[in-house]
Amino acid sequence: MTVKQYDMIEFSVGGAPLCAEFWQDEKRVRAESFLKAAGEYAVRFMPDALGEWHYRTGEKEGSFECVPDEGVHGRVQAKGTHFSYEDGTPFYPFGTTCYAWTSQEDALVEETLFTLKTAPFNKIRMCIFPKHMPYNHNEPPYFPFEKDEKGEWDMEKPDFRYWDRLDRCLSALREMNIEADIILFHPYDRWGFSRLGMEKNLQYLRYAVARLSAYRNVWWSLANEYEMVTALSLGDWDTIGSFIAGKDAYHHLIGVHDWVCPFPKKKWLTHASIQSGEVRRVAAWKKEYGIPVIIDEFGYEGDLPFGWGNLSAFEFMDRAWSIAAVGGYATHGETFHREDEVLWWAKGGKLYGKAPERFAYLKSVIEEAGALDPVSALPKDPNGNDWNDWVRKLVEGFPAREQWQVELCFAEFCGRNEGHRILYLGRQCARYFELALPEKGEYRVEVIDIWEMTRRTALEAAHGKVRVELTAKEGMALLVTRLSGENL
Amino acid sequence: MTVKQYDMIEFSVGGAPLCAEFWQDEKRVRAESFLKAAGEYAVRFMPDALGEWHYRTGEKEGSFECVPDEGVHGRVQAKGTHFSYEDGTPFYPFGTTCYAWTSQEDALVEETLFTLKTAPFNKIRMCIFPKHMPYNHNEPPYFPFEKDEKGEWDMEKPDFRYWDRLDRCLSALREMNIEADIILFHPYDRWGFSRLGMEKNLQYLRYAVARLSAYRNVWWSLANEYEMVTALSLGDWDTIGSFIAGKDAYHHLIGVHDWVCPFPKKKWLTHASIQSGEVRRVAAWKKEYGIPVIIDEFGYEGDLPFGWGNLSAFEFMDRAWSIAAVGGYATHGETFHREDEVLWWAKGGKLYGKAPERFAYLKSVIEEAGALDPVSALPKDPNGNDWNDWVRKLVEGFPAREQWQVELCFAEFCGRNEGHRILYLGRQCARYFELALPEKGEYRVEVIDIWEMTRRTALEAAHGKVRVELTAKEGMALLVTRLSGENL
Repeated sequence: MTVKQYDMIEFSVGGAPLCAEFWQDEKRVRAESFLKAAGEYAVRFMPDALGEWHYRTGEKEGSFECVPDEGVHGRVQAKGTHFSYEDGTPFYPFGTTCYAWTSQEDALVEETLFTLKTAPFNKIRMCIFPKHMPYNHNEPPYFPFEKDEKGEWDMEKPDFRYWDRLDRCLSALREMNIEADIILFHPYDRWGFSRLGMEKNLQYLRYAVARLSAYRNVWWSLANEYEMVTALSLGDWDTIGSFIAGKDAYHHLIGVHDWVCPFPKKKWLTHASIQSGEVRRVAAWKKEYGIPVIIDEFGYEGDLPFGWGNLSAFEFMDRAWSIAAVGGYATHGETFHREDEVLWWAKGGKLYGKAPERFAYLKSVIEEAGALDPVSALPKDPNGNDWNDWVRKLVEGFPAREQWQVELCFAEFCGRNEGHRILYLGRQCARYFELALPEKGEYRVEVIDIWEMTRRTALEAAHGKVRVELTAKEGMALLVTRLSGENL
Repeated sequence: MTVKQYDMIEFSVGGAPLCAEFWQDEKRVRAESFLKAAGEYAVRFMPDALGEWHYRTGEKEGSFECVPDEGVHGRVQAKGTHFSYEDGTPFYPFGTTCYAWTSQEDALVEETLFTLKTAPFNKIRMCIFPKHMPYNHNEPPYFPFEKDEKGEWDMEKPDFRYWDRLDRCLSALREMNIEADIILFHPYDRWGFSRLGMEKNLQYLRYAVARLSAYRNVWWSLANEYEMVTALSLGDWDTIGSFIAGKDAYHHLIGVHDWVCPFPKKKWLTHASIQSGEVRRVAAWKKEYGIPVIIDEFGYEGDLPFGWGNLSAFEFMDRAWSIAAVGGYATHGETFHREDEVLWWAKGGKLYGKAPERFAYLKSVIEEAGALDPVSALPKDPNGNDWNDWVRKLVEGFPAREQWQVELCFAEFCGRNEGHRILYLGRQCARYFELALPEKGEYRVEVIDIWEMTRRTALEAAHGKVRVELTAKEGMALLVTRLSGENL
């Protein structure tokens, strides 16, 4: 028997729950079983090392060979403030949002998968539980669990139709190299899943981890808008995070998406998953968290009567570039009103906006430039002097709020690594711009029009203080590439 | 002898300084003389009450008749968080910025006055001292003072050519009903006026008040970017403010323009003069200060390589509407690069931008709607419940910064008075919008396109919860007018 590396192997283990073991040399992985069908338990495992693996499921023992799978890079892991696959290949998340796509009818699920095939997204935010909200009035075809005789959700009774379907969705995403950022709880609920009580919460999580963690493309998002799930306290979230971290043998990424107050740092938190349109804070968050920062909701392209869902495509891309330029990661969403209420953001289906192709273009630029770190920039003296020190001293005397305001109002969308620098000028309509490049080296300066998706070389083999001619237009970015000499 | 009400009368008082007195019934005004020409002192007075006035200048006594002047409304005064003229006529400041226009050559000064004749501005921010900065490299034709033998500025030696010219400028502005917001100090200086020392500062101020305060259209702005004037402490500014308030018998308006930290409340401070592009804070500032708030610098329309001077006309107007909708006041500025360095913002001349006509349109809407007060709006439950109370409680548990962030991220650009309500939707591209009007009454809802400067009636005689169809475009404002029934 052979299994591809990072693929999933599943064993039926009979009518009683058990805990299986998988091992190779010193490495030993325990896997809890889950109820796969009526009276049938199963165990799943994802081998991450090549060669022979042994297993024991109850009384049975056996072994299989783990073989390479070309083009498969393993799980995504956090690495500093960025991500990479297990084999070291960088991963730059350019995700999208389809909260309730796995709670729609089959035809729509298929359409969503079809759309994802040609879309630029490599991550998708998706809920386990169905969603109640404007434009989300339909009942799901299946719920994750059935009810008991008292009419209460019974976590001992998974609805296999729901979970089998979710398996198909996760496999399909895995084939497309799309990470499934699985949202475990959320407040937009008319059925009671947001107030099950902690005992049922943990039962549910145990099932989800046992069933889903052997997918290499799974991420755990404890919540969408954790503050809004009023039945759970910060302590409860910590319990849930620790529970998942303890149960998940594969150490998948764990985030918690907020409503307005970013979730505090925790041992088990692998990345910040932030809702905020305040893109000027991204550099500060990177510094504060020291882990990757994904702005998992900064507003959606659309035309709804809600501020979170009616950004123009330009505003959407302006924010996405602002986030990406400082080495943060931006997540897509689309909310165009439709009479049939099939909006991408919740149900999937088709994309209608102008942002996706431009999001793909941004992705290609970041893939070329590589992982960026913010360049901190205090205001410059318009008379040309270096005021940083006295500005710092001056600002220390301000009230706390205003100190912070300085941070925001002088935020620049500028990031760097050894070989590249990106400065996104946002809504600034500059006719020209001055850059200070290193003196010792040669650098190419390209001007990118984020809307037209064009780039032109403004300067070749430049160094030192240079002037770049622009066209007094919003949405311009400068991409500097080191050709030789000092790092950027 | 007759003098028009709120006009200026001037007496030559000979070769020695003196203090004159003007009185009518119980009212008594003292006026210090100032050196008007070599060896010649003068005294100025502005009568604010009709009828006979008496005066004593040294040995001489006399009287004159103060007569009405049609269309003249007196000084502008602060009234709550708004402004009005002395006769009660409301004044809505729609100012502009020409920092150094009175320090340019005569032809350019004339051109600026010509431009102002047809421009929409009713206030102008202007410095006494010349300005040093990018695009401001020329020497002024005259300085306000001459130097002594040691090469130091001598406040006993005003350069009459400078002040006579300033008089002509102030008179011309007065004729055009433009308030002169006179900036007394600023940091952009290569000549030493920003570090004269307090003794010379007060000598200069004494001269300025004696000479200029009888213009009804004068406002005092102690500084442009007070924090940047590093020679002066907060205590010094308080001394200066108290000094002016004590010397100026006419109690002209006094503001202090900041760099990033709004000047703290003081007894003598009549309005907040704030530099900030953070227009979401305007409503909070109105509440905090309890006096009028003018965003005297929120970025200029232009194309310079500086974030403060390269807003698109749309971005400029978006900010102006955001400020105006909550009953704040927005000040114009224009900074288009020119090889001759004659930029409106500093030197005057001609206007080139697309903002002024749209600024005029906004002015006409505010003049129609009247003085607005912000409508505070906490986030609404997207499921339709009233979450305000629990949101408030939830937010109280957040760290201080995030509490503030809630304030900012849910800021709405919405203001009201008894008969009108304006909701500016900013960059939101809503296809429709829902409004809650009073149940008891009839209200007209108009949709304004701030860029096209058009308005159409969306609903006539509406009340209660209504839906307004929009066109999914940025820059839309809703103007609600009460036709009958309850106040808005």
